[in-house]
Parts: sequence; structure tokens; C-alpha cells
Amino acid sequence: MTIPELSQPQYGLQNVHFERVRFGDTDAAGIVYYANFYRWFEAGRSELMRASGVPYASIVSEGLFMPVVESWCKYRTPARYDDNLKIISWVAELKAATIVIAHEIYVGDRLVCKGGARLACVDDTGRVRRIHPSIRDIVERALS
Amino acid sequence: MTIPELSQPQYGLQNVHFERVRFGDTDAAGIVYYANFYRWFEAGRSELMRASGVPYASIVSEGLFMPVVESWCKYRTPARYDDNLKIISWVAELKAATIVIAHEIYVGDRLVCKGGARLACVDDTGRVRRIHPSIRDIVERALS
Amino acid sequence: MTIPELSQPQYGLQNVHFERVRFGDTDAAGIVYYANFYRWFEAGRSELMRASGVPYASIVSEGLFMPVVESWCKYRTPARYDDNLKIISWVAELKAATIVIAHEIYVGDRLVCKGGARLACVDDTGRVRRIHPSIRDIVERALS
Amino acid sequence: MTIPELSQPQYGLQNVHFERVRFGDTDAAGIVYYANFYRWFEAGRSELMRASGVPYASIVSEGLFMPVVESWCKYRTPARYDDNLKIISWVAELKAATIVIAHEIYVGDRLVCKGGARLACVDDTGRVRRIHPSIRDIVERALS
Repeated sequence: MTIPELSQPQYGLQNVHFERVRFGDTDAAGIVYYANFYRWFEAGRSELMRASGVPYASIVSEGLFMPVVESWCKYRTPARYDDNLKIISWVAELKAATIVIAHEIYVGDRLVCKGGARLACVDDTGRVRRIHPSIRDIVERALS
Repeated sequence: MTIPELSQPQYGLQNVHFERVRFGDTDAAGIVYYANFYRWFEAGRSELMRASGVPYASIVSEGLFMPVVESWCKYRTPARYDDNLKIISWVAELKAATIVIAHEIYVGDRLVCKGGARLACVDDTGRVRRIHPSIRDIVERALS
Repeated sequence: MTIPELSQPQYGLQNVHFERVRFGDTDAAGIVYYANFYRWFEAGRSELMRASGVPYASIVSEGLFMPVVESWCKYRTPARYDDNLKIISWVAELKAATIVIAHEIYVGDRLVCKGGARLACVDDTGRVRRIHPSIRDIVERALS
Repeated sequence: MTIPELSQPQYGLQNVHFERVRFGDTDAAGIVYYANFYRWFEAGRSELMRASGVPYASIVSEGLFMPVVESWCKYRTPARYDDNLKIISWVAELKAATIVIAHEIYVGDRLVCKGGARLACVDDTGRVRRIHPSIRDIVERALS
């Protein structure tokens, strides 16, 4: 498993949105449970796609899904109840059949974690498909 | 909203199974987060149906779903990390279009919570259907 | 278990906020999993308290917690991926040792569910305490 | 981020346990939501530690926590409602301040995913500590 470059790009398409830490996101250590950051990564992907003009809901409505084939996260500092998480999301890699969307999550200026997911594209029979052209167009435009 | 009788029946069909409290089930108060008991209620319903010979998966495979139309829970004492939850489940009510499945959750002899859910039955177009005959048969046999 | 009046009050303190349905909130029936609404109820309580000037984090920082002693929800229509949930929250009842916070969740004008929770107040040794005076003041002012 | 060797060891300490996929674990694509496997990884870690004679609860009761500093997962085939997940867990690496616990999850003979987490050890003030001697002893005995 090769983890693609996770550093935030200096230019190009990226999206920032905020999510509040709820009590149910924390655990008995008093901090956010490690698996829950992956839910915010999904929120970040979803908001990145919406902001780019290709909401994931429109992909789903064409009978396509984008299953995660790899995911990873590096935790730097804890997040706590009521923290206002700043989630930065960007496309870190685009290949024929997979796309990597990466994230950094901050509380204020403090880095909480960084990570991402590699997604494929399948139709409703489960057959692998090329990444949707609308997504490809946007990414290529952004990176060109 | 009328909450049906939640007391554990003295006789008839009931199912007992165990679930371990994981760290991710707890919150920053050091106890199980209140919403997570509803996940174990679902586990209890699922195991009750399997034990009764009508696994929920077989209902789903006929294109039917049993959406929850009401749910409730009364919390008595906290559950903590690594507690071994004893989940007792039974049918508390059966009507033409809805079924109530109730639960008590214990740690050892200590009651943690009691609650349940009223479920309807819908087909894959979302149309309301009568409760599946296999379920009805089992409940009626158990209560007769 | 007596379910307090859940109808939205015609006047007085209430709070509205929005949450987006994420993929992880849905289940294999294609709709929001029933337990997840309780997480949004918690978000609603939290935002109601913040808007009222007594954020729950300030209660916690005094070594107090407000455990849920009862919760309930009545589901009317499904919510789906990417729906923008409008969560209305208000104090439905205030007694010496418990407070009921109720909610209605809408997608547009369509009611998705209504429900709530009764909360107590305990200190960090688990001993029951009266509802925090700051909360009492706000509610009494709002209802007077 | 260097992902340690994830291949299942041919010998030495490993633990197998089972978890049932519940409806709440699935998403609208009809399969298990990607973040939920991390909850089962935690269950796997927990059961591995219990089976090794050092339950995580005993670590916590000494005022220590083992926060996750990295996590990763490679998804091969989907898991679905009611699948009986076989979770294999083992220690993949032990250093002075971190331990890597890796997992493979199967449904029958079919590999669903593989992944793991690197954990550190901190005391209740958040200060980094060496991995607990009881854990070290067990791992070194197992690998010797």
C-alpha cells in the first residue's frame, strides 16, 4: 500500500468546510475516537465534489458508486468535544480507475490529523468503471 | 406516542445474546453514548428473528424492509468500556401493520436500560405492507 | 415512561440548525439509519444550549455531565443521502432534577421525525444534582 | 507514513474472533461503510489483548491510554448485512514507544479487507510513555 503525497497543494482546487465535534464522536479517553475522522473525510469529499459542481448524489443518481479501496490517517494532536474542525480537502491523485482525495483537519491553526482515501468507480452491478468524466474534467482543468 | 408494555414477559419467545462494549461506543463522560444502545437493540431484533427461524436477511431478500416507526429507551445505570452486555429481546406487541420488539440490557444482574422499537413493513417501492406471514406465524404460535 | 408534549411551541426559546446527511448515516435500505437521528438530537441540544448562552462545554468544564435518562423518536418520512436536515430544538419541560429537550427534524417542509430526551445532571462522582442554575434561569426567562 | 508489513504471520501470537454485520454498519450502497471496519479493528485489538492476558481495560485502570497515531485499511471485497466477519489480529511491529496491531477480515474464505493501526502509550496527563511492560513481555515471548 503506497500512501500518496498528502501535503496540501500550494495551488489548485481545494475545499474547506467545518464540522463540530459532538459528544457522540468522543470516547472514554475524552478525545475524538480514531475511526470518526474517516466520517469527516467522507464529509470533506462530499463537500469538495459539491463545490466542484459534481455532487456525489448526482453520481449515485446515475447508478454509480465510488467505493473506497484504501484509506489511511495520521493523527497528530487530539480533537475534543465542541471543537470546530476545519477540514481541507483536495484531489491528490487521478488515475484511469482511481482517484485519491486527501484531507487535513485543523482546530484553529493546530493540525489534528491528515489522511485520505483512494476511491474506485463501480456501476450498480459492481463492475469497475473509469472515473466519471465530469470528475476527470474538473480535476484536469484544476491541475492544468 | 404510546409506549407499549416493556416488562419482560414471564413466558414465550425471547432471545438472549451478548455484545461487548468497545471503546468507540463510549463517550467523553466515560460511559456508553446514549444513541448506541439503539444499535444493540437492532442486534437484539436481528438475533431474535434469526433464532425464531425468520432471519431479517430473508425478509430483505424478498424485497421487503422493516423500517422503525417509533423507538424509545429508558436508561437506568451506565454501561462502560469492556462491559459484556446481556441483551434480552422479545415481541411485545403484534398488530396488522406493526410489530413492537422490546429489550432489556443488563451487565450481570444490573439493569442498564430498557426500550424498544415499533416496526412497519414496506416493499421496495416504499408501500406499506402487512407484517410478513412468517413472522406472524411464529409470534402467534409463541403467544398461543 | 411518559412522553412529554412534543409539539413545537408557538413562542419562546427555540433553536434551528442544519446538518447534512452523509453516506455513513444511511443504511442498506437507502435511508438514514434510525439510531443516527439521536446523534442529531444531541447536536440540536448542543446548539440550543450554545445559542442560549450556556454551552454544554461550560457545564462539562465545571465537572458536571447531563446524562440522558430517557429518549424517544417517532419517524414519519425517510431522510436520504445529502438531505439537508433542519433541526428545531426547544425545552419541552423543566423539573428540579430533569430537563426535556425536544426536536423536530425536517427536509424542506417535510417532517422527517420528532422526538427528544430527558436529561438529568450528575457531578463527576455520578451523584445526581439539580439542573444547573444557568440553564434554569434561561428557561424560566424564556417561558415567563 | 510507512505502512508496516500487513501479511498475516505464519506463526506466533494471533487472535481470531467474529463480529456480525448489523444494518447500522451498512450504507446506501448496500455494503459496510468504509469507516466501520476501524471499529472492528479496535474490537480485534481488544480481543487480542484480552486473549494475551493484558486486557486493555487493565491498561486504562492504571491511568494509561493507547491512542492511535496512524491507521490504514485496504478494502478488497465488500461485506454485507448479516455477514459473519472473521477478524484475525496480530502484533506486526513493536518499538520502544509504539506498537502496530494488524488485521485481516474475512467472510468465510473471502478476504474483505486488511489494515491496522500504530498505537502509542500516554498517561492521563497526555505525556508519552513507553509501551506497557506487560504488553512488551507478551509480544517478546510470542516472537522469541
